[in-house]
Amino acid sequence: MPRAVRERQMLDAAVRTFGQRGYRAASMDEIAELAGVSKPLVYLYLNSKEDLFTACIRRESAALVEAVRDAVTPDAPADRQLWDGLRAFFAHTAEHPDAWAVLHSQARTVGEPFAAEVNVMREEIVTFVTALIAAAARAAHHDPSLPDREVAGLAHALVGAAESLAGWANTETTVSAHQAAATLMNFAWAGLGDLMEGRPWSPPR
Amino acid sequence: MPRAVRERQMLDAAVRTFGQRGYRAASMDEIAELAGVSKPLVYLYLNSKEDLFTACIRRESAALVEAVRDAVTPDAPADRQLWDGLRAFFAHTAEHPDAWAVLHSQARTVGEPFAAEVNVMREEIVTFVTALIAAAARAAHHDPSLPDREVAGLAHALVGAAESLAGWANTETTVSAHQAAATLMNFAWAGLGDLMEGRPWSPPR
Repeated sequence: MPRAVRERQMLDAAVRTFGQRGYRAASMDEIAELAGVSKPLVYLYLNSKEDLFTACIRRESAALVEAVRDAVTPDAPADRQLWDGLRAFFAHTAEHPDAWAVLHSQARTVGEPFAAEVNVMREEIVTFVTALIAAAARAAHHDPSLPDREVAGLAHALVGAAESLAGWANTETTVSAHQAAATLMNFAWAGLGDLMEGRPWSPPR
Repeated sequence: MPRAVRERQMLDAAVRTFGQRGYRAASMDEIAELAGVSKPLVYLYLNSKEDLFTACIRRESAALVEAVRDAVTPDAPADRQLWDGLRAFFAHTAEHPDAWAVLHSQARTVGEPFAAEVNVMREEIVTFVTALIAAAARAAHHDPSLPDREVAGLAHALVGAAESLAGWANTETTVSAHQAAATLMNFAWAGLGDLMEGRPWSPPR
């Protein structure tokens, strides 16, 4: 069997084991057994438990970012782009709950250097969402347009909301990925949509 | 000096040290020095570095929840309640950046049992926000009203957005607590407000 195929099997087994049992409790023995290979072969290919975990984070980060990017048509209207991106995000996290547990819970609670690895992906998604909101604001070309700082703040809010909702949707078995995406669209777009149209919320009194 | 006063000094020094240097890098020596007491006294009062960190998390969680609760007038209109709560949240996290670093970053990246401690506070805030949104939906009494699941989802989205935005505002020195609260209000309320009025977002096409 080619090395690439073996490595993929090992990473599949590792993501499942880390996601379900946690980084510390997971053993290289059970990962090797689940992958159907010997433990020495896992060490030969992936070097150490730390390196194996890092490889899981990188692979699953890339897969999640790719799923979202692929779903979004750059020239579509902004709400269409956001809706497509959110549906892809929630579908991916629902279909890969172990991967999401590794990225959202495990990598951060285990600490460094893993938390920094996940932050790279998070920054990439924030940058992507920032560009989307900025483009939507330009398309609506209201004057004054949304300041950069406001756009960046909205992107951070949206990404935080999506992370929080994905964690909740994956523990609530009655909530589908589509419902989670629709809830966030309801929450976000009517608000962002009003902003784009130059109708900000204003404080009571 | 009474024990309670000494303990408060130790916790103040510990929150500052843990928040600025991280849990692992922080030493009991520097915490004792900053508190102006001997290291044996810190151990006598707080037992261990783990227990000291847990005490920091509990004190700062309680302070944050109290700041938000105190700011909100239960019978005020829903957007007033949300605006007051958000301003209190962002003001508190801006005024206590070390405490927020302990709760938001340190406690989660160090792992268990600390992450679970912070989750207790998070659940309390989600429950509080859920009740606020549910009350607002009842006050608007539209038919059909928002289902419980949708309300819970919106609360998780709002809390995740606030966490994300507070982390960003504390690293961006040009963003004030008031601006962060206004950005989130703009993002959230126009959206929630439309929902309350029975105007959900609907998918394109």
